[in-house]
Amino acid sequence: MSKRGQPAWQAPEAVDRPKLKLFNSLTRQKEDFVPLDGNNVTWYSCGPTVYDASHMGHARSYISFDILRRILSDYFGYNIHYVMNITDIDDKIIRRARQNHLFEEYAAEAQKLPLDELLGQQKEVLLRFQDTCAKNTDPDKKIMLDKTLQRMNDAVEALTKAVGKGDEREISEKRLLYLNEAKDPISDWLDSLKGAQINDNAVFEALPRYWEDQFHNDMKSLNILPPDVLTRVSEYVPQIVTFIQKIIDNGLAYAANNSVYFDVNGFDKREKHHYAKLVPEAYGDTKSLQEGEGDLSVAEDRLSEKRSANDFALWKASKAGEPWWDSPWGKGRPGWHIECSAMASDIFGPTFDIHTGGVDLKFPHHDNELAQSEAAFNESEWVKYFLHTGHLTIAGCKMSKSLKNFVTIQEALKKHSATQLRLAFLLHSWKDTLDYSENTMEMATQYEKFLNEFFLNVKDLTRHVLSEEPRRQFDAWTEVEAALQKKFSNAQVQVHASLCDNIDTRSALDAIRELVSVSNVYIRDNKTRLNSLLLRNVATYITDLLHVFGAISGPRGGIGFPVSGGSGAQAAGADLETTVLPYVQSLAEFRYLVREQAKTLKAFDILKLCDDLRDNVLPNLGVRLEDKDIGKYAVKLVDRDSLLREREAKLAAEAEKAAEKERKKQAAAEAAAAKEAQRRVNPKEMFLGETEKYSAFDENGLPTHDKEGKEVSKGQIKKLQKLQQQQEQRYKEYLASIEKA
Amino acid sequence: MSKRGQPAWQAPEAVDRPKLKLFNSLTRQKEDFVPLDGNNVTWYSCGPTVYDASHMGHARSYISFDILRRILSDYFGYNIHYVMNITDIDDKIIRRARQNHLFEEYAAEAQKLPLDELLGQQKEVLLRFQDTCAKNTDPDKKIMLDKTLQRMNDAVEALTKAVGKGDEREISEKRLLYLNEAKDPISDWLDSLKGAQINDNAVFEALPRYWEDQFHNDMKSLNILPPDVLTRVSEYVPQIVTFIQKIIDNGLAYAANNSVYFDVNGFDKREKHHYAKLVPEAYGDTKSLQEGEGDLSVAEDRLSEKRSANDFALWKASKAGEPWWDSPWGKGRPGWHIECSAMASDIFGPTFDIHTGGVDLKFPHHDNELAQSEAAFNESEWVKYFLHTGHLTIAGCKMSKSLKNFVTIQEALKKHSATQLRLAFLLHSWKDTLDYSENTMEMATQYEKFLNEFFLNVKDLTRHVLSEEPRRQFDAWTEVEAALQKKFSNAQVQVHASLCDNIDTRSALDAIRELVSVSNVYIRDNKTRLNSLLLRNVATYITDLLHVFGAISGPRGGIGFPVSGGSGAQAAGADLETTVLPYVQSLAEFRYLVREQAKTLKAFDILKLCDDLRDNVLPNLGVRLEDKDIGKYAVKLVDRDSLLREREAKLAAEAEKAAEKERKKQAAAEAAAAKEAQRRVNPKEMFLGETEKYSAFDENGLPTHDKEGKEVSKGQIKKLQKLQQQQEQRYKEYLASIEKA
Repeated sequence: MSKRGQPAWQAPEAVDRPKLKLFNSLTRQKEDFVPLDGNNVTWYSCGPTVYDASHMGHARSYISFDILRRILSDYFGYNIHYVMNITDIDDKIIRRARQNHLFEEYAAEAQKLPLDELLGQQKEVLLRFQDTCAKNTDPDKKIMLDKTLQRMNDAVEALTKAVGKGDEREISEKRLLYLNEAKDPISDWLDSLKGAQINDNAVFEALPRYWEDQFHNDMKSLNILPPDVLTRVSEYVPQIVTFIQKIIDNGLAYAANNSVYFDVNGFDKREKHHYAKLVPEAYGDTKSLQEGEGDLSVAEDRLSEKRSANDFALWKASKAGEPWWDSPWGKGRPGWHIECSAMASDIFGPTFDIHTGGVDLKFPHHDNELAQSEAAFNESEWVKYFLHTGHLTIAGCKMSKSLKNFVTIQEALKKHSATQLRLAFLLHSWKDTLDYSENTMEMATQYEKFLNEFFLNVKDLTRHVLSEEPRRQFDAWTEVEAALQKKFSNAQVQVHASLCDNIDTRSALDAIRELVSVSNVYIRDNKTRLNSLLLRNVATYITDLLHVFGAISGPRGGIGFPVSGGSGAQAAGADLETTVLPYVQSLAEFRYLVREQAKTLKAFDILKLCDDLRDNVLPNLGVRLEDKDIGKYAVKLVDRDSLLREREAKLAAEAEKAAEKERKKQAAAEAAAAKEAQRRVNPKEMFLGETEKYSAFDENGLPTHDKEGKEVSKGQIKKLQKLQQQQEQRYKEYLASIEKA
Repeated sequence: MSKRGQPAWQAPEAVDRPKLKLFNSLTRQKEDFVPLDGNNVTWYSCGPTVYDASHMGHARSYISFDILRRILSDYFGYNIHYVMNITDIDDKIIRRARQNHLFEEYAAEAQKLPLDELLGQQKEVLLRFQDTCAKNTDPDKKIMLDKTLQRMNDAVEALTKAVGKGDEREISEKRLLYLNEAKDPISDWLDSLKGAQINDNAVFEALPRYWEDQFHNDMKSLNILPPDVLTRVSEYVPQIVTFIQKIIDNGLAYAANNSVYFDVNGFDKREKHHYAKLVPEAYGDTKSLQEGEGDLSVAEDRLSEKRSANDFALWKASKAGEPWWDSPWGKGRPGWHIECSAMASDIFGPTFDIHTGGVDLKFPHHDNELAQSEAAFNESEWVKYFLHTGHLTIAGCKMSKSLKNFVTIQEALKKHSATQLRLAFLLHSWKDTLDYSENTMEMATQYEKFLNEFFLNVKDLTRHVLSEEPRRQFDAWTEVEAALQKKFSNAQVQVHASLCDNIDTRSALDAIRELVSVSNVYIRDNKTRLNSLLLRNVATYITDLLHVFGAISGPRGGIGFPVSGGSGAQAAGADLETTVLPYVQSLAEFRYLVREQAKTLKAFDILKLCDDLRDNVLPNLGVRLEDKDIGKYAVKLVDRDSLLREREAKLAAEAEKAAEKERKKQAAAEAAAAKEAQRRVNPKEMFLGETEKYSAFDENGLPTHDKEGKEVSKGQIKKLQKLQQQQEQRYKEYLASIEKA
């Protein structure tokens, strides 16, 4: 009774526990991730400029951001406040909206326009377009322009021919063809003539609203979470004006001819500031800078307003035919970079945790954002972690319209499911270049299939635990389970370490692949005494991880990929299993009992019904029923479409097998026919036809001289005699068979 | 162009970020929680001894463990490996199983036993029971025993009275009453007589298996996650024997009379060890220690085997009437404490992270576990964090059978839903005493209602975002939203801090209550321009937290409490028709085709399968399949219970119809018999019997005077004559029929 207090307790050491690190473009290395406010994370993500359909380049960024966001939130448990903008004021939008509007008007009139007038106008269009082509220096763009020119010229020729024929219907058709093929040159020509007269703001709104809706639809199809706050530039003009004024007040921006510019050199000179933090090498890259200024904002007069070629617009004076808002500097609109600074700051204040964007936005867009915001707040750091997703290539090449490899999200989704696309992204680093190619997608599809087979097997093999006495779900634990559990725990350690290491999903999926492999071995080797609970735990863990990665949509819970392919029913997918299975199970059991009886009775018609149910009826319902030699059957709920594809492949294989059989049969029949034909040859005549070999024969029909007139050798004659004797035997049999018949 | 490299980056400081702390019984204070293996946590939880229904005391522990487990896993992101045992070898189980078995045998015989013999035996039962009462010192138990005695005496008196009356039916009734009321004393008496003869292991297995199933059902009803591994003592005897041998080898246990005891004083003397770490004050508390040894293991001879009163059994020699396993020390069974040490170590090895149990298990059970395991592994620490859930009281009082406030889990669930019970637990600290009372439950119910109203409002007010153009879900962000978002973020900070602070769910729910209140104010003040996305984010966050807390079951996702009260399948109920029907339809069609074939083939066994599917299998699934003469069949999905009731009603109606037919048949037979009797009456005698009407008759038997002696009127006589003539006709026919026969 010596020790009457609690003994000292040794606290476990936390040293080797991995910590989340993120690759920060501000330091170009992985940094420990520490949010500014405990567990809460503020995050601004550069959103799209909405004037056209979203393509795989957009998917590259937004799927990657979604992966990062979901893992930070659902795996690491951060409360994330995620803001994204929509750029709905932009030079590209303005020009596109104006031109669409003018072209639609023109196309309606052009159908009634006298032909000579239309063709007269076409000459003007052509002149202007040739001028555009001449001025262009980009080789990629040149290919595009040449193609357009060719198509316009072809259409004009076709129209002229139709006029020559005087066929009114054909003329009308070719008119339409010309308008379609020459849409871009005509629009450009119209814009140059009447663009400046457009002053109805509705013209500039309809286009971005439409494409914004399409963008949201695309994001939803890709299972990308919506932002918590979405900021539209058009709704933020007053805040942007105030923000610009703050920069002017801090002495780092100046007004010129109703525009306002940022004083880059002035900013960089201040001790606490530093221009082009992300890409210091790009300081002075005026070409990139000019591209950032927008199509409508690079005229000579504009460029000469700037104090330095490094300066960029915060506020652009609007010309006729451009939308405008009032400001202290006159009627105008915000520059591109300023919107993100103003909107992010409006939501988060002078600093926040994470800013994300595509790698191509680093300079000038993001560097200018940083400069503007630091100038406005007079602080040296605006964003703590700047994350950039890598480039996207299409089968190894840069995606561009001229290369005809421009893939919209909707096109990609026609070829692969959102899950497959997501897996392709997960199997690559978010910050490196991703190549969208057949090979990439094949890898993703294979990975999905590998997991799916595992899920289906586990569900089939362990289903009984849901219906038996509750205690039966807990099988005794042996060394084999301990070994699998050890591997399971190791996989969890690896997944955790991978995700901590800059969200390395590829290594995490490698660990999962390994875990599935060892589980498959466990299943194979322990068929009669599988530990259901352990297998279901492994499958549940993997399913949940796929959920966290965004590869499975809908509510979290359950095992495996959702069963139904598409819509809202998908959400209930996890539950379909529990809902539907009792019915399918009783069907399978009934069929099994009937089948056993029918086998005994040799009731072949009933057996055919059983086969038909398995092969045709159930696959249509997404049910794969497998008859087993040992045990009775397996029931698997799978995606209906892939099941039907599977079935087609099976039928094709069967058809090929049947065709092969038919080919063999035919070959055999031909051989038999040849043999039969051979039987009927009189042995004395059998060599006579071989004139390409022999030139003379004896009375028995045996060759005596060859083609060249040389005598046939004794040895050769012996061989030929032997052949003749064999044929004599066959011929005799043949004659006998005729007589008999 | 001065600064051409990236500037230095200031890493954010992590100092004030809250860390998860847990109240560790090994130090009696909150300690930073650091698992031994990175993100993986090993956890052993003391499970139940399965010999009776689980009650609210069990719920207190298992709901609290489930809350801790879910939060560590789903909130903090640890991968948890959770092991729980089932104690299915135990003195209470042995005695209960033996007594149940003997009583059932006796009850069957006792119905036929001569009365004097039964009453003679009752005197023996009474003597033994009075002896038990006399020995008892526990005042609570005394009340119980007195009540039992009273009920037995009342039943005997009633039986004696019935015997006095000689009413056999009443005697039989009172016999049954006596057996019921005196079950415990009789069982105890039987056990003393024949307990030692029970040697069929099945007797000792059936009881724990049954109660284990009930336990799992209870846990499922409470939405408590099943363990990852469940270890049963009966499946662990070899490992336990090995474990005991290790302790003996280390010199800290000794065998005596085929039992093995732990050498407490020897253990405590070693420098690295320390007995009763959890409750040092209890060292020497032999009363608690003896209670831990078990009912069957505290006889004087047993106690005197020990070297010290502090020692406790590792292995108990089994006496006659007790189950046994072979061991190096003879036939016996494991002691109570050793099982947990051996099983936890088998799964985890010599050390693991968390051990949980109810506070009443601290001493001696958990202290003995620690001593045994440290002795076996020769280590000074076996468990890093020992967590104990607080006591449960019922309306302020200790729960006990004598106070009649013993509440089983099933009884509690009749009054409140699992969600309400869970909320009651969440609104209290897991480590303090929880009072289960009307007041506690009212608080929980109110909290649930408050949240539910909020969820319903948000869903109602924001539903339009699901159907409108996608961009409409993103309303512009103003100061009002910024203010609510700020409060939302603050709530998240508070929730995080609360959960880090020893999983303080009560404070977390306070923060949630506050968040709902400010959200309600926002809704009230901004009716015309509510930001749907923000409101839905708040509601989704709260819903998910409730999910993490186990207050909402089923898959994670969405807003609010599940619509239907119960299980997963029920939740999908609304859509069951569309989901399930295609499967049922194909089953019905397949059955129809098989049935047609089977009819043709006269395959009666298959037809029987078809009938069985319709009559037995499908009704259990809520499917009513009707075979039709015209058309093929009808398929109807109905509520399973009402279908079964419908079927019963149908059977009852058929029985009633048959009974009605029988009744009519009998009535008709009676009427026919009456008519037949009437035919046989001689018309001259037909009035003679009516002496209550008439006093004199003429020679034809016609009445002449009535009862009072008054002459019968002419009119009356005419009527009577007519009746007589009718009877003459019938009588004549009757006589003719006899003659014919």
